[in-house]
Amino acid sequence: MSTSHKYPKRGSFKPSHNRPVLNKNKQFGERFSSPSNVPMREKDRVTSHIPESGETVRIIPLGGVEEVGRNMTAIEYKNDIFVIDAGFSFKDESAPGVDYILPNTKYLEERKHKIRAVLITHGHLDHIGALPYVMPLIGNPPIYTRLLTAVMIKKRQEEFPQLPPLDIRVVEKNQTVSLGERTINFFSVTHTIPDAMGIIIQTPLGNIVHTGDLKLEHNDGVASPGEEREFGIFKDMDVLCLLSDSTNVEKPGFSIPEHLVIKNIGDIVANTKGRLILGAFSSQLERLVKVIEIAASLNKKVVVEGRSMKTNIDIIEQLGMLNVGRGVMISTEEMGNYPPDRLVILATGAQGDEYGALMRAANKTHRNLKIVKGDVIILSSSIIPGNERGVQKLKDLLSKQGAKIIHYQTSDVHSSGHANRDEMAWFHRKIHPRFFIPIHGYHYMLTVHGELAQSLGLPKENVFIPDNGSIIEIHPNGTGTIIKEKAPGAKVTVDGTSVSDIQEVVIKDRQALAEDGMFVIVAVVDSKTGLLKKSPDIISRGFVYLKESQELLRFARTIIKKTIEEVTTKKAAHQIDVDHLKQTVTDTIGRFLLQKTAKRPVVIPVILSV
Amino acid sequence: MSTSHKYPKRGSFKPSHNRPVLNKNKQFGERFSSPSNVPMREKDRVTSHIPESGETVRIIPLGGVEEVGRNMTAIEYKNDIFVIDAGFSFKDESAPGVDYILPNTKYLEERKHKIRAVLITHGHLDHIGALPYVMPLIGNPPIYTRLLTAVMIKKRQEEFPQLPPLDIRVVEKNQTVSLGERTINFFSVTHTIPDAMGIIIQTPLGNIVHTGDLKLEHNDGVASPGEEREFGIFKDMDVLCLLSDSTNVEKPGFSIPEHLVIKNIGDIVANTKGRLILGAFSSQLERLVKVIEIAASLNKKVVVEGRSMKTNIDIIEQLGMLNVGRGVMISTEEMGNYPPDRLVILATGAQGDEYGALMRAANKTHRNLKIVKGDVIILSSSIIPGNERGVQKLKDLLSKQGAKIIHYQTSDVHSSGHANRDEMAWFHRKIHPRFFIPIHGYHYMLTVHGELAQSLGLPKENVFIPDNGSIIEIHPNGTGTIIKEKAPGAKVTVDGTSVSDIQEVVIKDRQALAEDGMFVIVAVVDSKTGLLKKSPDIISRGFVYLKESQELLRFARTIIKKTIEEVTTKKAAHQIDVDHLKQTVTDTIGRFLLQKTAKRPVVIPVILSV
Repeated sequence: MSTSHKYPKRGSFKPSHNRPVLNKNKQFGERFSSPSNVPMREKDRVTSHIPESGETVRIIPLGGVEEVGRNMTAIEYKNDIFVIDAGFSFKDESAPGVDYILPNTKYLEERKHKIRAVLITHGHLDHIGALPYVMPLIGNPPIYTRLLTAVMIKKRQEEFPQLPPLDIRVVEKNQTVSLGERTINFFSVTHTIPDAMGIIIQTPLGNIVHTGDLKLEHNDGVASPGEEREFGIFKDMDVLCLLSDSTNVEKPGFSIPEHLVIKNIGDIVANTKGRLILGAFSSQLERLVKVIEIAASLNKKVVVEGRSMKTNIDIIEQLGMLNVGRGVMISTEEMGNYPPDRLVILATGAQGDEYGALMRAANKTHRNLKIVKGDVIILSSSIIPGNERGVQKLKDLLSKQGAKIIHYQTSDVHSSGHANRDEMAWFHRKIHPRFFIPIHGYHYMLTVHGELAQSLGLPKENVFIPDNGSIIEIHPNGTGTIIKEKAPGAKVTVDGTSVSDIQEVVIKDRQALAEDGMFVIVAVVDSKTGLLKKSPDIISRGFVYLKESQELLRFARTIIKKTIEEVTTKKAAHQIDVDHLKQTVTDTIGRFLLQKTAKRPVVIPVILSV
Repeated sequence: MSTSHKYPKRGSFKPSHNRPVLNKNKQFGERFSSPSNVPMREKDRVTSHIPESGETVRIIPLGGVEEVGRNMTAIEYKNDIFVIDAGFSFKDESAPGVDYILPNTKYLEERKHKIRAVLITHGHLDHIGALPYVMPLIGNPPIYTRLLTAVMIKKRQEEFPQLPPLDIRVVEKNQTVSLGERTINFFSVTHTIPDAMGIIIQTPLGNIVHTGDLKLEHNDGVASPGEEREFGIFKDMDVLCLLSDSTNVEKPGFSIPEHLVIKNIGDIVANTKGRLILGAFSSQLERLVKVIEIAASLNKKVVVEGRSMKTNIDIIEQLGMLNVGRGVMISTEEMGNYPPDRLVILATGAQGDEYGALMRAANKTHRNLKIVKGDVIILSSSIIPGNERGVQKLKDLLSKQGAKIIHYQTSDVHSSGHANRDEMAWFHRKIHPRFFIPIHGYHYMLTVHGELAQSLGLPKENVFIPDNGSIIEIHPNGTGTIIKEKAPGAKVTVDGTSVSDIQEVVIKDRQALAEDGMFVIVAVVDSKTGLLKKSPDIISRGFVYLKESQELLRFARTIIKKTIEEVTTKKAAHQIDVDHLKQTVTDTIGRFLLQKTAKRPVVIPVILSV
């Protein structure tokens, strides 16, 4: 048997006992791998070509400026680096099989001795989701954030028992902390989760202000007294640079204020004769708390369905942030003890996600929650791009079972946590920075936000539209620039236990397999005669329906046999260029299959010589 | 060598020369297969259990009532069947690799002797796209439609040269035709393409009215005189049953009338100093024609980019439906002869589709169309669910190249071709049917449309919310019902050259491959000793990044060897249950890989005995 015949060029392996790339224990971690499992980057992915920041203030968005999600920004001045937020993005259809996408932290890893703190604006996963993966890589610096966010980070960290404990320090909005040579302040912002805050980093050149995600709690465009007060701190402040949320800046005017959404939901809760089911994100904690309080005031009982929502409500209860009496919250099993009009159910799954409570109820796979005629269901969330079909399926299934559906496209039962254009203008006017960097959004959103800043008076050269990894420098002389060097920006993917910035090949293969499937050929050549020992085997998945394709396979086998034997019967085994032979088989059969089926399956030839 | 060792349970094949399922020439057709290639349905997918329609009027939505797309409805009365529309749906992410989805026509195939005509409401692909696949199956009956639609069907049929010619008969909106024992009338409706029409089938029980897709050309809710006149025909008509469009019935009020959209685009065209690029669907023919006329009136030149748009504009020109002088339409190559403010470019690709003209320009892969600073781009279409990321990418790329973007979310530069709720109410009042069947939409949309009909006075029992294949019967005594039998409704997919209603297994495999990839094991057993001749080969794609996973593969090989040899060293080759051995290898290695990588690749063992 000639072993040299056996290895397809890509994707099969010779045993390689002499080069175990990773230590066994490290490689084979838990379900959620320790970030110490992150495979080494390629040698050339370093940052040594990037000059020192010198006397400049350096601002580097490492994630969240070419997407909505995986937010992370580094602020560097002299000997100190501050990292603001460490979020992930959820997978999308362009990267099948990938669980999350993380910011690339290579720049920070190579400067971890300078990192004084990670500052977290609020507890949403696009701001905290990357912490377990990133913290060990950047030297586990202390994390500063407000109470609820701190508890949410700790709770999530429990899913990664192999990781070293985090050093989390709770701050309050009026607190001042000194870190390295810098002084940091915080301020409170309105978002959809309590304890959201913005961050002020003082420098001799002026202050850097990062708002995190925010919106206004306004009445017809007039901000609440609390917000007027909170943003009053900027009145006489010298703000060097503002970084702020661009998610909804394309939308005109002001967003619907949350108090109106709560009023509308409250009216529906009060007037519903059947059960009231509210489908929402578990991250919409402000709203969930308010709805529970309304239900309590109407003497209704509240059931929480869905793991993430239960976790979050539990945290809120433990922190004493839920002002309702005992007995308001009941378990699903207790629902039967109350008439429908005394029940309010808070459920995950409003995005049509397969395992959300509401979707399981719609699919009739939920153990306790069965949809019945008379149920009124409020879908209190907008549809995240990509989830439209899932939400449509949810609405179809729920309406088939007789439920009445109220959703944000027909009633104001949802509002985003991100400011619209005129709200953003309010923040710009209050903070009046000298430089502006739009963050949190796709490039076009940032462009629109940059135009807004210019329309409010900033000169064009003081507005920077960054990419992930762009290095913005503001000089003591009052000028700023995006330097030509970039921090490494390749997407880092979490794919099962693998955390890596080099998954591109794997994802390309998955895309090809998803479109046209695979076609594996196994041919055994008699090394004496050069003839195939038998008709080649074909293993296929996701290509064509096999029962209908016997003729196709018969033709394919004939072609394979002929293609191989044309070479193997004329040469001795050692004279055969196996790679070339396999390429010929791949090309020939690929062409044949394309012609006959208009599909391009991934063709993999295995040729054995015995 | 024991051949019985070589066949994985599913997906590999024994030669089967004795059962060629399909004739060779039929199986291996052109790129676009002849519908005669449609594989036979399973024996039990017949309609013989469905009783005859007897004296009832039977209405069967065969597609388009559990989705937006693949519209088809059959109307049956005594000896006559009329088919209204034959559209397809485009693929979606739930069926990777599939090109189109067709209505299931089994019911019609088994009653083709009764089919008097296929009546087509308008020339969009969700109404004509299935014709090449379906017509031969249902006996190639004559097609009745208006002129533009007829030409579009003929043009499309040219892509299927192997098909028999279609018998298309052009009718006009005021025409009356007698087909079988029935009389058919037509009426004109407003949609986004010229020559859209509704259909009236007269029966002794009353008339069946099918509106097709439609909206109103209104001013603040007051319909145009033309529409008042056209729908005046229903004033004293006895309408037994109405079937009508539900696509936008969830949206309140009236849709933006097209004349306002045209006015807004016209203003932008007039005032733009740079080039004006309009990204739109090639199917938005009404709008494209109007924009060309506006450009001509402003002494501007018009370039058309994108194959489908060129084809459609060519047809419109040939039919004399474009009222502009010679020299208005120029080629891309002539653009350089005119200053930017004299150029209007109509381009496909506004949905971010990879091969659309606008997307190729954005990607800098378009040969003639390069985006330059100063270009103004109107994206004159809403975003089709699922295309959000593509459109976002388009906007990001265009804005990076300095183009200004105007889109429907910030300006009224697009309106849908489907009526909102209050417009639909206008049609219901005009047509005043005794029965109503909402069509063209997902189940929830139909439910909302059904509620609208009830709110306008129809009794609940006279409103039917159908599934695809539901058989609705209206009896001479004035009652109606959905009978318990259903017409076959399985999705028929076009997947390369394969047209089939049995692709489910293939698609499930593709989904699995897309998530976690594949892991093929090739082990060669020495039949004398039962030992592996060498360490097993592993071929993997889309699973993990291989260079980083040598340790994993080494472990996997050890496990495979041990699992196989435990069986093969203890038994003679003929005693081994190969299927059982392969299942054991699959299970063992699947568990191992899941534990180590948190991924579940498709594991395929190939075990050869030599």
